[in-house]
This record gives sequence, structure tokens and C-alpha cells, in this order.
Amino acid sequence: MKIAIYGYGNLGKGVECAVNAAPDMELVGVYTRRDPDTVKTNGTPVFSAKVLQQGNQDVDVLILCGGSATDLPTMTPEFAKKYNVIDSFDTHAKIPAHFDAVHKAAEESGHIALISAGWDPGMFSLNRLYASAVLPNGTDYTFWGKGVSQGHSDAIRRIDGVLDARQYTVPVEAAMESVRRGENPDLTTRQKHTRECFVVAKEGADLAKIENEIKTMPNYFADYDTTVHFISMEELKQNHAGLPHGGSVIRTGTTGWNNEHKHVVEYKLTLDSNPEFTASVITAYARALYKMHSRGTKGCVTVFDVAPADLSSLSPEELRAKML
Amino acid sequence: MKIAIYGYGNLGKGVECAVNAAPDMELVGVYTRRDPDTVKTNGTPVFSAKVLQQGNQDVDVLILCGGSATDLPTMTPEFAKKYNVIDSFDTHAKIPAHFDAVHKAAEESGHIALISAGWDPGMFSLNRLYASAVLPNGTDYTFWGKGVSQGHSDAIRRIDGVLDARQYTVPVEAAMESVRRGENPDLTTRQKHTRECFVVAKEGADLAKIENEIKTMPNYFADYDTTVHFISMEELKQNHAGLPHGGSVIRTGTTGWNNEHKHVVEYKLTLDSNPEFTASVITAYARALYKMHSRGTKGCVTVFDVAPADLSSLSPEELRAKML
Repeated sequence: MKIAIYGYGNLGKGVECAVNAAPDMELVGVYTRRDPDTVKTNGTPVFSAKVLQQGNQDVDVLILCGGSATDLPTMTPEFAKKYNVIDSFDTHAKIPAHFDAVHKAAEESGHIALISAGWDPGMFSLNRLYASAVLPNGTDYTFWGKGVSQGHSDAIRRIDGVLDARQYTVPVEAAMESVRRGENPDLTTRQKHTRECFVVAKEGADLAKIENEIKTMPNYFADYDTTVHFISMEELKQNHAGLPHGGSVIRTGTTGWNNEHKHVVEYKLTLDSNPEFTASVITAYARALYKMHSRGTKGCVTVFDVAPADLSSLSPEELRAKML
Repeated sequence: MKIAIYGYGNLGKGVECAVNAAPDMELVGVYTRRDPDTVKTNGTPVFSAKVLQQGNQDVDVLILCGGSATDLPTMTPEFAKKYNVIDSFDTHAKIPAHFDAVHKAAEESGHIALISAGWDPGMFSLNRLYASAVLPNGTDYTFWGKGVSQGHSDAIRRIDGVLDARQYTVPVEAAMESVRRGENPDLTTRQKHTRECFVVAKEGADLAKIENEIKTMPNYFADYDTTVHFISMEELKQNHAGLPHGGSVIRTGTTGWNNEHKHVVEYKLTLDSNPEFTASVITAYARALYKMHSRGTKGCVTVFDVAPADLSSLSPEELRAKML
């Protein structure tokens, strides 16, 4: 199957690597809005996004590696008119509206599209669904981290006097342990996660003012216990260059006529590279889309609609013999 | 949807409870090979299995709660000729042959069948498949326990001089920690699990002989470090009456052009009641079978072939809004 990438940031680079490792996929091109001559890939030919917009490229699945805030809301419906597409749209509250727009475009054009692939939304969503279907009488908890939140790091960088920053989301261990013991705690935002910030300030900047601006920033930090460390650019580059992340989806529930039996289901990810793992999930779902479209499926789907066997390069017989 | 149960042991009782808790299911009957008058359910009407064999019962999905050793290999293909059926066949090595027999019967009769639902095979299989599709360059580990193995408990009970017994499978914590650190250890059977046995012996029995027979029993105990405790019947009933189980599926893998990024995916179950959790999984898959058959799917499938959304009683719109 012929795969193409639109957008070549961290995610696009991860997809390039994941598709190269897949035995049944060929990466035909990276498409970019930048001047193609300025984009240096790991061997994949680079083309202008304008070529892609003509709709005549020989591509089985187009992987859209744009951002959720401004790119994907228009990009995914637009390209679903011309290709089978997949994205990693991750603004949870706007998923229903995005789904509707993409579904309309894909269904009318006879293509298949999958939105919101990755790990949250994505693998975490799957685990919320599986666990709640199996244990209807129960409660879900999602903890994130320890890991770098790029959105929160960006928010700090926009503060006056800040040169660079890295923000880690840290789950509160005691809260997770209480959940794992099946104690069903009611947890506030503050009780679930803390935020740890490593900030490089301009020389002579007012550090107290920066720290205060971070800690009181609405939505991002005000509802959390936040720690701020001022460090040098050298230290940031040496100790905080990676993009690790992860987290746990935990569901606790009961069975029995008197709810006398407690069960705990936990799905836990520990990731050295958030974009590369996200890219690996997207790549597996691109394979599934190809198979589903070959069988006649059209319109928009999500990870909830994809049978697990379609993600694998193994045959159904091999899967049953080796993995069931 | 109308659900019926065939077989009323621990698993059948668990299914009765799970189906009663489902808002969209009606439990129409328990069918038994015993005299129906001798079977006391939690309110479900009891019928003779002979009635079911006539093939004219008004049942949307028949849940087969027989044993894998002797019941299901003939029971599932037989009833797949007459009803939509689901079983929890768990002899991993014989799954391909069982699948073929059930598929033939279901396809010819226009029914749908699902084999090997539960947690292993079942939820654990799903997690092996998802993690290996997402991280093709990696290694799988499955650890079981701490939990009661009914097969191993039965094996001890068959020894001369034994009145009753309970066997716990215990994962080796150090081995699990090594896997979680991504060290990719090569582990022998002995290095992964130990076995702990609580045995009630007949008065005057030769305890040393019993202990030796357990520890040297091929397949069941010879390849493990096994501990044997002789206890009273009273203690067995007081402290070892439950059927807890669980375990972890862990996949560690790498991404990046030089495999420089390590990822760990873990799915962990901690279950107070093995049969009730297994029953809950089967019940969710019974719902999926009903939906799939309504859409025209026929023949045998496994958990690998079922789209997650079909397991839930929520609509696709609700799932996308709440769980994605």
C-alpha cells in the first residue's frame, strides 16, 4: 500500500520512520507547504502540497500530520474529498463536529477517513471503551505523565522574558495508588496531576514575575500545584531535549449480585518519544484503513470502528494461531 | 436481545449476573444437562438441554458455559448449526482446529459464532495484538497471577490422599520488573512464575509422598518452583474460598532510525473473581455478536474481528463524545 505524509514536523518524521519499518507499506512522498527544496527528509522524496491538492496523486492512504488547533479542522475534510486520510485530531471537545465534517466529505467522495488516532485520543480511548463495556458498573480514571506537554511548554514560551521552556505533567502517585486499590476516590484536577516547569529566562528578566505569570495562568496552570525551575539553555538542551510521555487508563468496577467482587483494569504507557509512538499508532491504523476501503467501507470512522485484526500485517490465521 | 445460557457452573452463574446487569439484554433461560428441577438459579427459568437441541428456541445469542477439555469441542459446532453462539474455549494450541469446525457449522447455517472470549484468551489476546501492531519491533511477555488456577487445583485433588486443594500461580516480581524496565530478558518457565499449593490431606496420609507427587508432576508443576502447605479443611474454606486471578501483558519495543526510543505498553488485570470477570467479557461480546449478525455477518469470528464500538450499549455518537 502506498502511503504519503502531509506535514513534516515531529509527527511527520515519526511517521516516516514507522512506515519505513512496515513490511507491507511503501512511502511515496512527503508533501509540505514549505519550499520542498528546504525540507530534508530521511530519504523520502519531497513535493509541494499544491501537487497534492490536485487530487491525482497515486496514494492509498494520506497521513495528515498537521496541528489540531488550526490545520486539521479544515485540512482533513478538504483532503477526504480526494484521498483516504487519517489524522491525530486531539481536541477532545471538538471531536463530534470534526467527525461530522470529515464524514460528509469522505462519504460523498467514496473515501475512508479516520480521525483522532494516537494514544489519547487513540489507545487510551480504546481502553476506556473496552473496560467500560466489560465492567459497566465502574469508574474510569485517566492519568497522564510523567511527560512533556508541548501545549504547556508553548504557553510558557509566550511569556515575556522567557527564551525557552519545558513543562512536565506529573501524575500524583498517591491518587493513582488509591484508584488501583479500588477506593473509587473523587479527585479534583489538583489532586490528580502536578506541573513541573523548566524555564530559560532572558538575562535580567524578572524571574519572580515570570514564575507568578506561569502559576496563575488560567486553564494551563492555575488549577494545579506548579513548580518552576529556572535553568540555563545548556541544561535545558542537555537534560530536557526528549519528548517522553505516557500515562494510565484505570477502570475499577464490581461484579456479583451484591457487587461483592472488585476488579481493576489498567492500561499503562511509558513512552520515550511521544511523537514516534503516536506515529506508530497512526501507521497501524493507516494499514487498517487500506484494508477496510478495499472491502468497501466509506466515510469517517474512529478507532472504535476498526476491528483489531485489520491493524496487523499478519493474516487472520496467523493471528489466531500466535496471539489468541 | 434475548440471551440464553447453556451450563450452570461458576461461569454460567457469572453470566447470569452480568446479563441481568445489562440494560439492553433479556435472559430467557438457563439450559442444563442435569434434571432442571435440581438446578437453582438466581431467578432465571431452567430448561432441559434437550429442548435447546430442537433448535427452535427464541434466542438471539446462546452463551455456552461448558469446559474446554471435553464440552466445547463438540458443543460449539453443534449449537452453531442452530443458534448464534459464543464460548470461552481456552486451549490455546487447539484454537485453529476449533475455529475451523465452528466456522463450517456457523457459515452453513447462516449463524455467527465467537470462540475464545474471556481474558486469556480474550482481553490479553487483544492487547498482544494491539501492542504488536503498534510496536512491530518489540517483544511480548504475559504474566499470570497472583491467582487460582482451577486446572492445577484439580490436578492436586486427583492425587491419592488429597481431600481438597487450591493452587495459586504467582508471577516472579523481579522478572516483571526487568521486563517493565525494557531489559528484554530471556525468561525460562521457572523464571516467570512460581506455584503455591494449599492442600488438605486425609487423616494419616503420607504428606511427604503427596508433596513429592505434586512437585514432580509433569506439565503442571515439574518445571516450576513449587511450595506446598498442608492446611485444615476449615482454613481452606476460610482463607481460600475465592477465585481471584489476573496478570499482565507487557510489550516493550523501540522506534527511531537507530531504535533509540524505548516504549513499554502494559495491560494489567487484578480480578477478585475470575469466572465473573470472564462472564462479563463474554456478555459484552454477546452484544457485539447480536449487532454483527443483524448487519449480516455470518461464520466464526474471534475478539480480533470485532470492532470495539459493537461491545458497548452506547451509540457511536455517545462513544465519540464521551470516550474518544
